Order: sequence, then structure tokens, then C-alpha cells
Amino acid sequence: MKNILILGAGRSSASLIAYLLRQSQQQGWQITVADYSEENARERVKGYANARAIAFDVANETQKEEEISKADLVISMLPPAHHLTVAETCLEQGKHLLTASYASQEILALDERAKKATIIILMECGLDPGIDHLSAVKEIHKLKEKGGIIKSFSSYTGGLVAPEYDNNPWNYKVSWNPRNVVLAGQGTVKYLQDGRYNYIPYYKLFSRTNKIVVNGYGEFEGYANRDSLKYRSVYGLEEASTFIRGTLRRPGYCQAWDVFVQLGMTDDSYLLENSLALTYKDFIASYLPTSDKPIKECLRDYLNVSDATLHKLEWLGIFSDEKIGERNVTPAQVLQKLIEQKWKLEKGDKDMIVMQHKFGYELQGIQKELTASLVVIGEDSVYTAMAKTVGLPLGIAAKLILQGKIALTGVQLPVVKELYEPILTELEEYGIVFKTEEKEV
Amino acid sequence: MKNILILGAGRSSASLIAYLLRQSQQQGWQITVADYSEENARERVKGYANARAIAFDVANETQKEEEISKADLVISMLPPAHHLTVAETCLEQGKHLLTASYASQEILALDERAKKATIIILMECGLDPGIDHLSAVKEIHKLKEKGGIIKSFSSYTGGLVAPEYDNNPWNYKVSWNPRNVVLAGQGTVKYLQDGRYNYIPYYKLFSRTNKIVVNGYGEFEGYANRDSLKYRSVYGLEEASTFIRGTLRRPGYCQAWDVFVQLGMTDDSYLLENSLALTYKDFIASYLPTSDKPIKECLRDYLNVSDATLHKLEWLGIFSDEKIGERNVTPAQVLQKLIEQKWKLEKGDKDMIVMQHKFGYELQGIQKELTASLVVIGEDSVYTAMAKTVGLPLGIAAKLILQGKIALTGVQLPVVKELYEPILTELEEYGIVFKTEEKEV
Repeated sequence: MKNILILGAGRSSASLIAYLLRQSQQQGWQITVADYSEENARERVKGYANARAIAFDVANETQKEEEISKADLVISMLPPAHHLTVAETCLEQGKHLLTASYASQEILALDERAKKATIIILMECGLDPGIDHLSAVKEIHKLKEKGGIIKSFSSYTGGLVAPEYDNNPWNYKVSWNPRNVVLAGQGTVKYLQDGRYNYIPYYKLFSRTNKIVVNGYGEFEGYANRDSLKYRSVYGLEEASTFIRGTLRRPGYCQAWDVFVQLGMTDDSYLLENSLALTYKDFIASYLPTSDKPIKECLRDYLNVSDATLHKLEWLGIFSDEKIGERNVTPAQVLQKLIEQKWKLEKGDKDMIVMQHKFGYELQGIQKELTASLVVIGEDSVYTAMAKTVGLPLGIAAKLILQGKIALTGVQLPVVKELYEPILTELEEYGIVFKTEEKEV
Repeated sequence: MKNILILGAGRSSASLIAYLLRQSQQQGWQITVADYSEENARERVKGYANARAIAFDVANETQKEEEISKADLVISMLPPAHHLTVAETCLEQGKHLLTASYASQEILALDERAKKATIIILMECGLDPGIDHLSAVKEIHKLKEKGGIIKSFSSYTGGLVAPEYDNNPWNYKVSWNPRNVVLAGQGTVKYLQDGRYNYIPYYKLFSRTNKIVVNGYGEFEGYANRDSLKYRSVYGLEEASTFIRGTLRRPGYCQAWDVFVQLGMTDDSYLLENSLALTYKDFIASYLPTSDKPIKECLRDYLNVSDATLHKLEWLGIFSDEKIGERNVTPAQVLQKLIEQKWKLEKGDKDMIVMQHKFGYELQGIQKELTASLVVIGEDSVYTAMAKTVGLPLGIAAKLILQGKIALTGVQLPVVKELYEPILTELEEYGIVFKTEEKEV
């Protein structure tokens, strides 16, 4: 009898918990779902006698230690800032830990200790990061095995709305943490293109997009992710002269979102003065030069925005006379409030995950390009494509570890055959299948 | 016999130390000048038997405590980050402390303790902040005394090069910390205009300048400072519907500097990859979209830069094939290296301080505007206008305190009559005199 502890029962945990529960009877697992809201946790485990739902506060040291002590393996779906304290307890107690989050420097520094404790701390095992690593490295290994020299790598992923349910001018709905949607891209972007290091500041990011086409699903635009460079060595692609990872949106989204960025309205570092008294129109006016003209004209003069963009902004309600109605909020929080209402994935809506890797390589003197694309459509607004693609890799990895099939210890990313082969194979059963195309260039 | 301890003998300390030394024999002071470089300190005290020069490391607790224990009053010209630890020791030992730096939250929080210790911690008593506060509050008090209702306040200050020595296309030379020139404006700017709170993100700051004219000195452009809002209550101007503080440059500077901002080259948060191998041209190319065109054409396409701006950039050497020749540097550090060479105040050059306040007010139903302007020209490249205007207010304040003429205790800014009257009066002896003009509007 093995015990699995899942910390966090939010949106992204639905498919993970459902997968583990379905497997639990056959595998002989006891499952504990722990969430700040006991109700959330209870909702997830309904109907399973071998599952327990508890109210959980990661700041409560005693509870954290007690619950982890009862588990054989912990999966943390908490916000990334909490992983370190969970990892410390897992190390002390010799329990495996899995997350879908980026491995911070602090987590990477635990490698030696995790090896000594003979546990695995498996990070970045969700969608992006996660399935991107699994699938990219699998193709890279295959290309290298047949003698290919990989010269360029680019990879884009987007969490979007499925075409049939795409009924707003932004062609976007929120299937994950809306706060991250508002703050996306903050920091400096770094990547390698044609042998040159490229840097893009946040405020140029949304105007420097690439066109990406996915067969059968049309056009997308991609903007680069924060730091692509560190994955060159992780993927074994030190020799590639182009290496870029990015995020996908539908065409037009970035140009319109860029208006908020240019105005400074995505800033999360200060509180607005007097926000309770402000309307959304007053809010945007605070970022425009003083003028007697109507607000849209003023915006057009200032940033030279297109009609299509103005329409998107208007639809979002940013010119409305409605009051924000919040005290002590940052500009980013006001935007988040707007998009949570307007970009909501409604009951019955389905989301869509799109991922595409392109590998430029040379084989026997011939220049080739391999494209691997993945599209996943969600089941509904709970078992979303996002929840599925984030949760299933974690669930499958947890199963493999508890079955003793993974000998790895230390801090690991899912970039080794031992992980990508069984995980990608099982993901296919859930419709998570890449399509590849190859051509000479 | 009173002892004065001056921490930091850098560029901005020259006039302060010279003033205190000149006064020292008459006042019966013993002066200690402490600097990381003993040579720097020795240079400043040459020829004065009642002055001592020492090598000083603020991180050396024992030395810090010992030197402060010997003093009656401490003036810290160290980088702002060190003021707190100095203030703590001054509090413990009951010694007065004066600085020319902005009062941080941590320093302001020492107010009660300073009152209990019956010492004054006088902050913001240099030029800007410093002379701006002294002179603005003096005019505000005068206007209010005669029954004026102040409706708007704007104040700009610039440290520039004197017209006769202004021989580069930027019309700028560095008379203070060059690092601060590169990082100027980072963060979010907040001010109040016509009753509306305005926010400008860093990346729009240099394209949103105002024209400022100073009689006899021509045109300037002003960009807003980080946080103007907190001075409304400090100045007693809560009722004003416009309140803005800013920085002056010569016309054209901001448009050209904005190119570096737009490209992301003023970032100090990450190290450049492979910087030792890069030329300045490679450096700027890393921030431009990939293109086969020549670099200047590429820049013109990307940011629509004017010929005048291109000329400024070229003159600075940013398109040159010279190697940066540094390891592990941030983009901001590379720019700093360039401007330290190119914008150097040469021996014999004179700098210039320009300050201008504008007060819009109503008196007996009539709308009026009062303009108070200050221009100070330096003596040479050591006794600069910058060193004079930063150092003399501190020196005079120190004298007043040691003479027992200031009864204030706690954390103070120079915004009370007790300080501004004697300080501004004595500054006039050094040619630091405001000219005022008044008109109906």
C-alpha cells in the first residue's frame, strides 16, 4: 500500500487527481488531496473510498511535516514559491517530490542532498515545461542516432480556446492562472538566433512575434520565453546556432496586449492611488498624456493603434464608465479582474493546447526540417486540455516511480529516455500524440 | 572643540570638505575625512593641521563604531545603501547624522529613536534633493503668507555642462555618479496633473518630456522623477492639482537616450553572454531584429530614429568595431563604460546646475505664475557646480547644528524655516541665488 500526497487541488490538478484515482485501486494506492480549501479537495476525490481530502496550509509546519511523513510520494501543485519548503521536508523524510514548475536555482541546489537521500525531485514534468521537454528530447535523440547534426531548434506552446468555442475578438480564454497571463513575459527574453545572442526587453516582446502555422489549425503568433539559453545544454544542443522557446497566441492578440504593456498597465509593483473611485476609463486615462480629446482618439495618437486592436480593447471593457470597485490594487490586478470576467472559459467551453517544435538539421549533407506538432482539445471546462497535459505526465511519472521503474535520484528534469519513452507512450492513450512532418529546405 | 566625521571623499564631497576646512579654524573643529581610499581622503585635507585622513571601510563594524564615537556629527557621502548602518551607530552613540540622499522608509522609521536620542538625522540636504526643498518651501510659505492659493507646482533640476564647454552632440557631460546616469528613470514615474494621477513606465519616460525655458540659458527638456507624490504633504501642497518633480537635459538628449532604453540596453539585471568577444556594434546588434541590412539602417527601420539621434549614437561609439573587452558585465555597465569615456568632464571643463520651480497660484481672484530659477556654474572639474550645490547645504547645516542653532531632533528634511532661512542666506554668498519672475496667466 503506497501513499500519494497531492498538494493543491486547483484548476490544473483535475486531470492529475482523476488519473491517480482511476489507477489507485489497481495499484493499491492511498491518495490524499490537500488544499487550502477542504471543499475543493473534497470535490476532487468524490466517490473514492481510498482517497482522503484535507484542508491544508503549507505555512503550517506541523501539518506539512505530518502529512508528508505519511506519504511515499508528494506531488506539489502549489504556487512555485512554496516548492522549496515542501522539498526541504521531503529531503528530511526521504520522500519523492514531483512538480510541473520550473526548477529554480534553489531547487537545483538540492541535487546532492536528494541523491544522498535516494529520492527523486522531478521538476518541470507538466506541459510547458514538461511535454515540451519529453517530446523535444525524444526527437533530438532520434535525429542524432541516425547521424543528423541539429543546427536550429525552436519550440512554441500555447494554452488557447478550441476553435468551436472561440467567440471573442482576442481569440483567447484563460485555462490556467490568470495572474500569469497578465504578468507573462516580464523580465528580459534571451535566445540564440543564427549564432547571435538576442535580448528583448519586456516592452518590445509583444511587437516581435513570429508567425507559426499548425496544419489544420491555422495561424498563430509566437513570442519568445524568458530564458531559452539554459536548455541548450539540458537538451544536448550546445552546437545549435538557433535555440528559442516561446508562447503561442492567435494573430492580433499580441498587438492588442502590447497596448497595456506600452501604457504600463501590467505593472504589479505599486498600488494605484484612489482606485476605489476610478472607472476603467479613468484607469487607462492615467497612462495617457493629458488631452482634451476623447480617450480612444488620445490612445490612437499616442500609440498608433489599429482599429482591430481598439475593438479588442473596447470589448474588454477598458473604456467603460464602470467602477473598478477595489481598494489597494496594482494595475496588473485591475487587468486581471477584467480578463477573469471577459476571458472566462464558460461551462461547456473547451480549451486547446498547441505545441510545435521545429528542428533544422543536416543529414548526409542535406539540409532538412522536422516539424513535430501537438494539438489537444479539452473535454470541458474542468477536464481541460491544460489540466490533462499538465497533470497526466506527472501522474504517469508518479506511477512509474512507485512501481520502481525509475532508478533516477537527485533533482531531475524529464529529458532522459527512462522517462520520455514510457510517459509519451502512455500519453498517446489519452490522445496526446505528436504529428511529425519532414522536408528538405 | 567639536569633531566632524565625513564618510566618503568622492567627487561630490570636494566642496563640502573644502567648506568645512575653511570654517574649521574659526569654529574650532577637528575634521576627519574617511574614504575607502586613504589617498582620496588625504588629497582632500591637504594643508590643514586640524584635519585627519583615514582609510575607512563601512563594513568594518569596529572601525565604524570607533570613528563615530570620536565625532560629534557625521556626514555620510557614502552610497545610499550604507546610510542605514551608519544611522544605527549614530543612534546608539547619540551622534547627529547628515546626508544628501533620499530618506528611505527604513531611515524614516528611525524618527522616534532619533528623538529619544535627541539627535537629528537630516536627510535630503544636498542639491536635488536639498536646495530644491529649501527654495521651494521658502516660496510656498511666502505665497501662502500673502494669501495665495497654490494650484500647481512643478520643479526640474539638471546637472549639465556649462555652455562654453558644451562641445559634444549630446550637450551633456557627467558631473556625478555615471552609474546613476545610465539607470536614471528606472521604475515607474508617478505625478499629479490637473487633478489626475499620472503613471509613466520607464520605457515611455524619455519620449514624454516637457520643454523648459530658463532665461539667458535657452531651452531644456524635462522628464519626470520617480515619485513626486510623497512631497505634496512634505511641502504642504495637498491641495495643488498639479505636482511634478523632474530632471533636465538639453533638447535632443532624451530622444537619443531613449534608443538605449527601447532596445533594452540600460538593463542592469543580467550578464551579457560572451561579452569579452563582443564589439560595441555586436552589442547593439543583439538588441535588434535579425537582418542583413547595415546596422544603422536596421536601427532606423526598427525604431524610426532621426538623423540627429543617429549622429549622437555614432559619436558615442556604439556602432564601433572596438571590443568591449570586459567579462561578466551587464548591458548597463557596458553603456556606463562608454559614457565615462565620452561624457567625461575634462580638466578645465566647467559644469552647470540648472533648477527651475514654477508655482501656479491664485491671489485675490487673479491667476498668477511665479518662476524661480537657479543657474550655478562650476569652478573647474573638481570644484564643480554639482559638488558645490550638493556639499554647501550639508556644510552649512552641519555648522548650524554644531553652533546649537537648530533645535530639531528626529529624522528631518530641510523643509522648515529654521533650516531654509539661514542655509539659503549663506548659499547666496557662494553665488547660489534664485531669480524669480512673476506674471498673470
